[in-house]
Amino acid sequence: MRLALDEARRAAQLGEVPVGAVVTRGGELLAATHNRRELDLDPTAHAEMLAMRLAAGRLGAWRLTGCVLYVTIEPCPMCAGAAVLARLARVVYGASDPKAGACGTLMDLVRDPRLNHQIEVVPGVLAAECGEVMREFFDGRRTERRGG
Amino acid sequence: MRLALDEARRAAQLGEVPVGAVVTRGGELLAATHNRRELDLDPTAHAEMLAMRLAAGRLGAWRLTGCVLYVTIEPCPMCAGAAVLARLARVVYGASDPKAGACGTLMDLVRDPRLNHQIEVVPGVLAAECGEVMREFFDGRRTERRGG
Repeated sequence: MRLALDEARRAAQLGEVPVGAVVTRGGELLAATHNRRELDLDPTAHAEMLAMRLAAGRLGAWRLTGCVLYVTIEPCPMCAGAAVLARLARVVYGASDPKAGACGTLMDLVRDPRLNHQIEVVPGVLAAECGEVMREFFDGRRTERRGG
Repeated sequence: MRLALDEARRAAQLGEVPVGAVVTRGGELLAATHNRRELDLDPTAHAEMLAMRLAAGRLGAWRLTGCVLYVTIEPCPMCAGAAVLARLARVVYGASDPKAGACGTLMDLVRDPRLNHQIEVVPGVLAAECGEVMREFFDGRRTERRGG
């Protein structure tokens, strides 16, 4: 999660909403990246999506069986849906997202028994730090808008 | 939807689960593509995702405001979540998906009032043909497996 936090801070420096994500398997680092929606002009370029795509490229397989996703903010419905499709073993996240969190907060797509795969969830890891990176980013943007 | 069906049939020829998708705005075609999960070894490479990414690239913006997604099969949670993030105006789909449909069948993410955008849904357009392309594909795979 420390590495995901580093990625989130990198995103903030680039003007992106600061979310960082890492994918590992058996202790091996497969991918570490951050949200790139503005940089790539791509509505799907959330940190988790890019990390899963990078990991799949690294493994040469779309099934990320046995893989763990670490992400600084609770995944949204798109990312949670992708995690199910990718057959991730576990999602470890930092701060909860009351507005769009789809791993237990607003809804719980990754443990929906009607879908064809369920994922273990570990919430709240370094939650305060992960949330703080977001708060600082949005506070900074508000200050900018006020011309401060 | 005819164009999306052509794309689905192209996917089947390539050994991909045959789902096709098209994005338009104001009658202009922005993207037409199909599922490429196996070809790209990418768990996120559903037809809808690729079509939205192509359309965003074409428009030079991640917000697909005013855009319509046509897709042969009801979008899954990942694709429905992406459609909300992309601010699509409308989703038009062919056959419903009782196993993972997230635009009104198994769940309804695109009209969830708790999320920050809602999308108009037009279900059942050329549903029989869209479903038939899927059935033929899976029947063919079962026959192959039996060595028939």
